Amino acid sequence: MAPSAIPFPLLYLSFAVFASLLLVPPAASSSTPKLPTFPPSSYYHHSLAQRAKHSAARPKPKPKLPYTTHYFPQVLDHFTFQPKGYKLFPQKYLLNSTFWHRGAPIFVYTGNEGDIEWFASNTGFLMDVAPKFHALLVFIEHRFYGESMPFGNGSYKSAETLGYLNSQQALADFAVVIRSLKHNLSSESSPVVVFGGSYGGMLASWFRLKYPHIAMAALASSAPILQFDDITPWSSFYDAVSQDFKDASLNCYEVIKGSWDELEALSAQKEGLAEISRTFRACKNVQSVDPVWDWLWSAYVYTAMVNYPTEANFMMPLPAYPVEEMCKIIDGFPAGTSKLTRVFGAASLYYNYSQTHKCFELEHAPDSHGLHGWDWQACTEMVMPMNRTEHSMFPPSGFDYKEFSQECKRQFGVMPRPHWITTEFGGKNIKLVLKRYGSNIIFSNGMQDPWSRGGVLKNISSSIIALVTQKGAHHVDFRSASKDDPHWLVDLRNQEVGILKKWINEYYEDMKHSMKE
Amino acid sequence: MAPSAIPFPLLYLSFAVFASLLLVPPAASSSTPKLPTFPPSSYYHHSLAQRAKHSAARPKPKPKLPYTTHYFPQVLDHFTFQPKGYKLFPQKYLLNSTFWHRGAPIFVYTGNEGDIEWFASNTGFLMDVAPKFHALLVFIEHRFYGESMPFGNGSYKSAETLGYLNSQQALADFAVVIRSLKHNLSSESSPVVVFGGSYGGMLASWFRLKYPHIAMAALASSAPILQFDDITPWSSFYDAVSQDFKDASLNCYEVIKGSWDELEALSAQKEGLAEISRTFRACKNVQSVDPVWDWLWSAYVYTAMVNYPTEANFMMPLPAYPVEEMCKIIDGFPAGTSKLTRVFGAASLYYNYSQTHKCFELEHAPDSHGLHGWDWQACTEMVMPMNRTEHSMFPPSGFDYKEFSQECKRQFGVMPRPHWITTEFGGKNIKLVLKRYGSNIIFSNGMQDPWSRGGVLKNISSSIIALVTQKGAHHVDFRSASKDDPHWLVDLRNQEVGILKKWINEYYEDMKHSMKE
Repeated sequence: MAPSAIPFPLLYLSFAVFASLLLVPPAASSSTPKLPTFPPSSYYHHSLAQRAKHSAARPKPKPKLPYTTHYFPQVLDHFTFQPKGYKLFPQKYLLNSTFWHRGAPIFVYTGNEGDIEWFASNTGFLMDVAPKFHALLVFIEHRFYGESMPFGNGSYKSAETLGYLNSQQALADFAVVIRSLKHNLSSESSPVVVFGGSYGGMLASWFRLKYPHIAMAALASSAPILQFDDITPWSSFYDAVSQDFKDASLNCYEVIKGSWDELEALSAQKEGLAEISRTFRACKNVQSVDPVWDWLWSAYVYTAMVNYPTEANFMMPLPAYPVEEMCKIIDGFPAGTSKLTRVFGAASLYYNYSQTHKCFELEHAPDSHGLHGWDWQACTEMVMPMNRTEHSMFPPSGFDYKEFSQECKRQFGVMPRPHWITTEFGGKNIKLVLKRYGSNIIFSNGMQDPWSRGGVLKNISSSIIALVTQKGAHHVDFRSASKDDPHWLVDLRNQEVGILKKWINEYYEDMKHSMKE
Repeated sequence: MAPSAIPFPLLYLSFAVFASLLLVPPAASSSTPKLPTFPPSSYYHHSLAQRAKHSAARPKPKPKLPYTTHYFPQVLDHFTFQPKGYKLFPQKYLLNSTFWHRGAPIFVYTGNEGDIEWFASNTGFLMDVAPKFHALLVFIEHRFYGESMPFGNGSYKSAETLGYLNSQQALADFAVVIRSLKHNLSSESSPVVVFGGSYGGMLASWFRLKYPHIAMAALASSAPILQFDDITPWSSFYDAVSQDFKDASLNCYEVIKGSWDELEALSAQKEGLAEISRTFRACKNVQSVDPVWDWLWSAYVYTAMVNYPTEANFMMPLPAYPVEEMCKIIDGFPAGTSKLTRVFGAASLYYNYSQTHKCFELEHAPDSHGLHGWDWQACTEMVMPMNRTEHSMFPPSGFDYKEFSQECKRQFGVMPRPHWITTEFGGKNIKLVLKRYGSNIIFSNGMQDPWSRGGVLKNISSSIIALVTQKGAHHVDFRSASKDDPHWLVDLRNQEVGILKKWINEYYEDMKHSMKE
């Protein structure tokens, strides 16, 4: 099923009218009438931000990080000059200067949709490589996440406050902080490299494109900058998740694919929901099948994303290659075991690898990483259309822009601007555009990660480089090196370090020549 | 006298405190105590926008232009998603498709601070070259100028409305209009070249830097993108005006330089202002010397800017090489004629070349080209510090940032952000940055134009090219070709056409290859 393109509107506000002309793929509601079809509320689950939804029961980790904490008095609105836009808010950033000396590189992590500590603790790569570059490390928190709340507790009150939460303002924040920092450190000539993973990787690459006078290079890991408009096939994300499971075991894929009907059928029976609650060890009986669907959905999607080659705890504590482990569980039950029991077993790996749960909170739990601002971003600029076709292991479903946008309007009082990101940052014909223009960006992607499909997967030029690993997952390169790392991962990181070294040396050379002229 | 640098603030709001530490060059107030020293109100006169101030008495010209007029429903605020930012306003643009066919280039003039018709009628270059490229011509009006008023008559009411008037929003407007236009014309593959003169040239070059996915080249004529912060010596503008007059005649320069004291001395005498009014043929007696000062000042500055090699009517109707003509007048009076009489004669050339005035409105007249929004822009982002040293023919004066910013605050209720433009668009170490990054920008400058000193005057790379003409003035290349054009001007335009042809051909080639891949 080919994705139906969002028509390009003459004006944004008329979008609803145009969208009504969209072809909505019919498969969804006919084959799985009572499963969540694709309302926006379900759409959000695909966002990068919602991934921690079910991890909330755990206490918030307070990692001991090798960083000092600082707050920058940031301007609320860089792009209007209304008096209220001059308001300052404390933007949090973390610093490590252990290895740095004046004039040496500054490595900046462009924070994404969560507490900056969370990203710092999951980006050990920077600490690992800092000595090689004598680099200053800076992690800047994204506005409206973590502690960087422009309106304190009222930051999420309404579209009036949330209006200032978007990528352009965030990039300008980074620019202002970096410029001020360099000035205050009397290190104006330090080359700045920006790093980011996931949405943070999008920000890092966009920062290099929009602020080349501030950052001389970017390493964007797992950055799906092509997941907008109709650049990437809308089905690619769920196809990629499914491929991970299919690659692990065809039976596993088929069990999961068949389990939705089983779930649906059981829920329609008398006492069906009670039985489902028992099967899924619900702490509290579920009142509908939706949270169960969601609970399973999250387990598959996030496990595919973090299908790391070593034990890790990004979303949840998990063993090495957790997709394979899930499939081993599914395949390992005795013949005759129901699909539901099998998939429950698989999902339990995700939710309970450390065996601390006696029962599961199947209903949505509150957000533990301060990520809920993504809902707003997904409803305004970060419109990444996705559908699910018959090829995936999920129930098929189309992307109904009209429904999506109306839900956004209902929830936040504003309509999405689905073409804004590609207008502001590009993406269409990226090869032609960036070959002719940009430089010094590494796009790294691991093909286990479903977000990779919206990433840059081929070299664009000699200095816009795609590093792709077949066995890599969501910004795996950014994790701390460990003795168990496979060769391809060690190689990947070495390549990144080598490329950055080369670019930084070139920068120093160019700077020397430029000063002589 | 070296310009005192604006210190880089830790935060914008504390600027007033930092600014109090600024060294204010003492020359101004001591040598010319009663002349306008350098208050912000005088500072604005240096802006690109105020240049038409004294031309207001004339009826607004309604040129017959070869364009059709259109209005695009533009979004008020691209960078926040507050409900009120979704408001649409009609943004005016002009189209000429006489020579165009689908797939052929689209030439876009990125409108600056005035009615778009005014720029269209003074950019005959585009009509002249359109047939050579089969180009579609588009002139997009800048928001808050001409008819493109987001809040109708209330657009200039307060900082609340004016807040949306700035360069970033303007660039985003252009991006949205161009993208929509290409879509509606089914000509997505058309290469887009942006053109602009003066502030419009700054916008054109910035557009190429920020939106390389939309514009594949820019021709920025007389674009002082380096007139910010301390990149260009603050004295350069007035030194350049003075140099024009000195080159025409040393005596002329000295007469003008000496006239200020004469004016000052006369004004201090009993009945001095009445005599000044008579000498300057004031329609109404002046009440202070300030408007006379201003009247003279404008005549010199704008005549230097438009020191064109042929008769022209950009600011005012003027003969070819008007600076030389002014100096001939000054030098041509009989021995013993007062300096004031001489400079009045010179200024009359500027104000009354067509001999239509019997007397002069020395007091400020209302703005005839819809330019007054520049005051706001100069008080927010477009902070271009300038001073006048002993080398210039004007009374020396420093740039007092504190006074300037306080006046802005008083007038508009907001403080300037003097480092914002260089944070957002760069400018420092431009050679190093753009050599390593950008491409396909022509910066053309005529050295007669005092704004040239803040422009890019040397080639940066093989595709960031500076075209400099010693006898050129403010975007002279954009004027319609005429039979009287000197060879260097014909050559300049030919060079521009040749370079653009080359770049456009390369683009088509790259596109062909890219589609094959």
